[in-house]
Amino acid sequence: MSTAIEDKFKNIEDVQGRADLRQIAINKVGIKAIEHPITVNDSTGNSQHTVGNFSMYVNLPHNLKGTHMSRFIEILENNHQAIDVTSFGEMMKKMTARLEAEEGFIEMSFPYFIMKEAPISKVKSLLNYQVKFIGERKADKNTISIQVTVPVTSLCPCSKGISDYGAHNQRSHITITATLNDSISIEELVSFAEKNASCELFGILKRPDEKYVTERAYDNPKFVEDIVRDVAASLNAENRIDAYVVESENFESIHNHSAYALIQNDKRN
Amino acid sequence: MSTAIEDKFKNIEDVQGRADLRQIAINKVGIKAIEHPITVNDSTGNSQHTVGNFSMYVNLPHNLKGTHMSRFIEILENNHQAIDVTSFGEMMKKMTARLEAEEGFIEMSFPYFIMKEAPISKVKSLLNYQVKFIGERKADKNTISIQVTVPVTSLCPCSKGISDYGAHNQRSHITITATLNDSISIEELVSFAEKNASCELFGILKRPDEKYVTERAYDNPKFVEDIVRDVAASLNAENRIDAYVVESENFESIHNHSAYALIQNDKRN
Amino acid sequence: MSTAIEDKFKNIEDVQGRADLRQIAINKVGIKAIEHPITVNDSTGNSQHTVGNFSMYVNLPHNLKGTHMSRFIEILENNHQAIDVTSFGEMMKKMTARLEAEEGFIEMSFPYFIMKEAPISKVKSLLNYQVKFIGERKADKNTISIQVTVPVTSLCPCSKGISDYGAHNQRSHITITATLNDSISIEELVSFAEKNASCELFGILKRPDEKYVTERAYDNPKFVEDIVRDVAASLNAENRIDAYVVESENFESIHNHSAYALIQNDKRN
Amino acid sequence: MSTAIEDKFKNIEDVQGRADLRQIAINKVGIKAIEHPITVNDSTGNSQHTVGNFSMYVNLPHNLKGTHMSRFIEILENNHQAIDVTSFGEMMKKMTARLEAEEGFIEMSFPYFIMKEAPISKVKSLLNYQVKFIGERKADKNTISIQVTVPVTSLCPCSKGISDYGAHNQRSHITITATLNDSISIEELVSFAEKNASCELFGILKRPDEKYVTERAYDNPKFVEDIVRDVAASLNAENRIDAYVVESENFESIHNHSAYALIQNDKRN
Repeated sequence: MSTAIEDKFKNIEDVQGRADLRQIAINKVGIKAIEHPITVNDSTGNSQHTVGNFSMYVNLPHNLKGTHMSRFIEILENNHQAIDVTSFGEMMKKMTARLEAEEGFIEMSFPYFIMKEAPISKVKSLLNYQVKFIGERKADKNTISIQVTVPVTSLCPCSKGISDYGAHNQRSHITITATLNDSISIEELVSFAEKNASCELFGILKRPDEKYVTERAYDNPKFVEDIVRDVAASLNAENRIDAYVVESENFESIHNHSAYALIQNDKRN
Repeated sequence: MSTAIEDKFKNIEDVQGRADLRQIAINKVGIKAIEHPITVNDSTGNSQHTVGNFSMYVNLPHNLKGTHMSRFIEILENNHQAIDVTSFGEMMKKMTARLEAEEGFIEMSFPYFIMKEAPISKVKSLLNYQVKFIGERKADKNTISIQVTVPVTSLCPCSKGISDYGAHNQRSHITITATLNDSISIEELVSFAEKNASCELFGILKRPDEKYVTERAYDNPKFVEDIVRDVAASLNAENRIDAYVVESENFESIHNHSAYALIQNDKRN
Repeated sequence: MSTAIEDKFKNIEDVQGRADLRQIAINKVGIKAIEHPITVNDSTGNSQHTVGNFSMYVNLPHNLKGTHMSRFIEILENNHQAIDVTSFGEMMKKMTARLEAEEGFIEMSFPYFIMKEAPISKVKSLLNYQVKFIGERKADKNTISIQVTVPVTSLCPCSKGISDYGAHNQRSHITITATLNDSISIEELVSFAEKNASCELFGILKRPDEKYVTERAYDNPKFVEDIVRDVAASLNAENRIDAYVVESENFESIHNHSAYALIQNDKRN
Repeated sequence: MSTAIEDKFKNIEDVQGRADLRQIAINKVGIKAIEHPITVNDSTGNSQHTVGNFSMYVNLPHNLKGTHMSRFIEILENNHQAIDVTSFGEMMKKMTARLEAEEGFIEMSFPYFIMKEAPISKVKSLLNYQVKFIGERKADKNTISIQVTVPVTSLCPCSKGISDYGAHNQRSHITITATLNDSISIEELVSFAEKNASCELFGILKRPDEKYVTERAYDNPKFVEDIVRDVAASLNAENRIDAYVVESENFESIHNHSAYALIQNDKRN
């Protein structure tokens, strides 16, 4: 901005900088639902390009009137690092400092792609997953969770058990929200869900693959209760995870509503 | 509004009433996405309460600057009739006249409920369908279409054919958009979809019912192509329907994308 | 179901009734996202018809294999009462008992309509709000929260302060989630939001009304921080509310993202 | 796939290859809503990484039973080119040939980012736009349209005219769907929308910028009718565009519904 223009605006009052007299602190204030292109590091040492949807907040003490909204976006614009748990933690630290706040919160949600091999033909294709990084910074300490929503097949044991042939099955979403004490890859979290479903999904399936996944699901029936319990058992055994929520939503093929189950566990308690 | 206040505002210029010099006519102008409670007549002579989402437009000749937005909502507020094809046609006529336009368009989308009986236990429960009335008024003549989105089960013939046991199946949406020359009930349109799917859906299924629908779908496998063709054959035979589009979207239980097919036919051509 | 058929299915194993050996309790299991028509009591002693979207869960002890999904829907089908805080509490009690569970959870979300008068012309029109009842039953005790999402106008004090004329304004959503210790009407909760915005919204506004709301918003500028603080101050003073979360999301008219703030307060702590 | 396995599956019947006896051709069949990472060429000779949502269909003559779903995804997996109008046209040609069809349809929707400079401070930030490429191949000829949804500010002339101060304004979406006879960049299409709104949007605005955009919108009031007419006038003058639809949806800050207008024009008629 030129000096002339700067002079002209020098006297524009910084309304947000005023004192506030209502004596009410704000838990979170900032920007919500801003899209920004990002690079995410994957478990193989490579990185992939995708698009993040960010919400970025800080706390505001009772005596301050407002925060500085444009600084949040400057944090995004100035970030040129690929994102992983480490650099996400640094972004939270930078944001909280730049906003002169004590607490900071970032949610970053993005589609993530994993190259999968069809079970028999070994044809490769990408599968898309929805992933969210959830960060909270309090008392100079970051807590980071990763959430993965994993589409899978579920096949109903009751339907299989009572029917002379066939069994209803459907697409389900297993969502794992894991609070970490150490780095864990998106691929690993996805795998906790996929290995505990009736079957995992693929982009391309040739006919021999389709035979395989059909029979695999039929051999491996699971209620929504079984899915969350089996995923929970896996997560209980994983020491890098301090706490988790696991959910399964089965978009029932015989109803127009979902079957749903949720288990949460904080191992630190 | 009191006379005193009316006097005060008498001189507020009616900006929308001005002439427009750009010489460009507008095809549709009005209000979009307004929710309003409605009553819909069903095929049994009864009516049901639901919530409509309305879009209401008229054309605007090149020489007029603007339309009168509040009049659209007055049409909604003043409608106290239960809605069926007849009263929907009257609403289009009233709207077009009240807006002093030549052409009028209304889309009214709403959830609709049908009481169904489970196939074996005969237990009753409601199933919800998304329905849309689509009206177009040109040259003093209404054209009315009804769109129903019907959730069903589809079971894959290929998966059944190649697998030693089981077959992948999933929830699918069959959408029929039918342009009518005579009254036809929502229930009849829904039935064109349900009878041509691998199986229809229900709210409550007891175990004997679940056995029935599982085996019924397995006995009745359909590709997405089969579904739209079988529905199209039914719609071809129905003389009250002048034109239609039928779509099926299968939310594949073995992929993270949909299989989709569409047939359109205008019998008047 | 006829006796013959009952006999035939007597031996169908009740798979869900089996014991479970994984020793993992489930926090919530049930049905999600089922639509059902409902009647809601309003504050005037009248009731209105609308459409509810229900999620209904119970807990499941570690030793039980599954819950009984169809019973949840029977609770819905058998409910013929208009819904208010009292009857919603009874539904939670019935559900938890019928599922033989210790804990029960119901979320019921629905569009709700309030007849409003335009500020000057006094023309009446409905405005739609999204409302959610959230119930939790533990140790034979219900905790009920009502959530209202209230669309309002926010006008930016900074934009007004620094500009020679005009000020950017936009639609905002104020969401109040209030945990109650006594009955409070939807209308009252909505009013906490509307009276603390730059201006409230209306379905129909005549020109004198439009002048009024334009000037009212300009006279009453509020940052997103001001909105949540002013609503919080109102909720702090309301003794029927034990705890609350208030959020404001401003769909900024000068950006393609939202400004957002949140305050939560549990007065019982 | 190993030869042994190939042998095993040699006899799996290709169910989709059968003849169909219903004598009903299918207009479109294929896959819907598949996400895939893509690279898009921008107008500066650079390219950007983003995520596409694809729907890919072909026609199916009355005598063929089914299409080959996995081939659509192979087209995606085998595409390693950056996407622009030219390479998108080639993808349509390849797909139609690979599926042995006469007609092909691709819709590819993706977020796109443009680096913008704030009007006074010249601070740079990205703004996100939703873009869709729509391709239709018939009789060996491609028709390609580009759709851009551009978020802008609209400020109401009536509100400004009748009020002593202020004017309601809001975020609006201008959507241009342009059928091209020559290459045109996304940036150019976006610019047709932005220059005809009350004001364009930015990611970061410093206070002098906020003063600028506030006053700019106030100086430049537009009804929804004005917006679509002014954009239409620009598109009429652009010879690389054969046909277009322009829509504006204003998310009114004084109502809970949108104002909407649409103009369509096919210059080839």
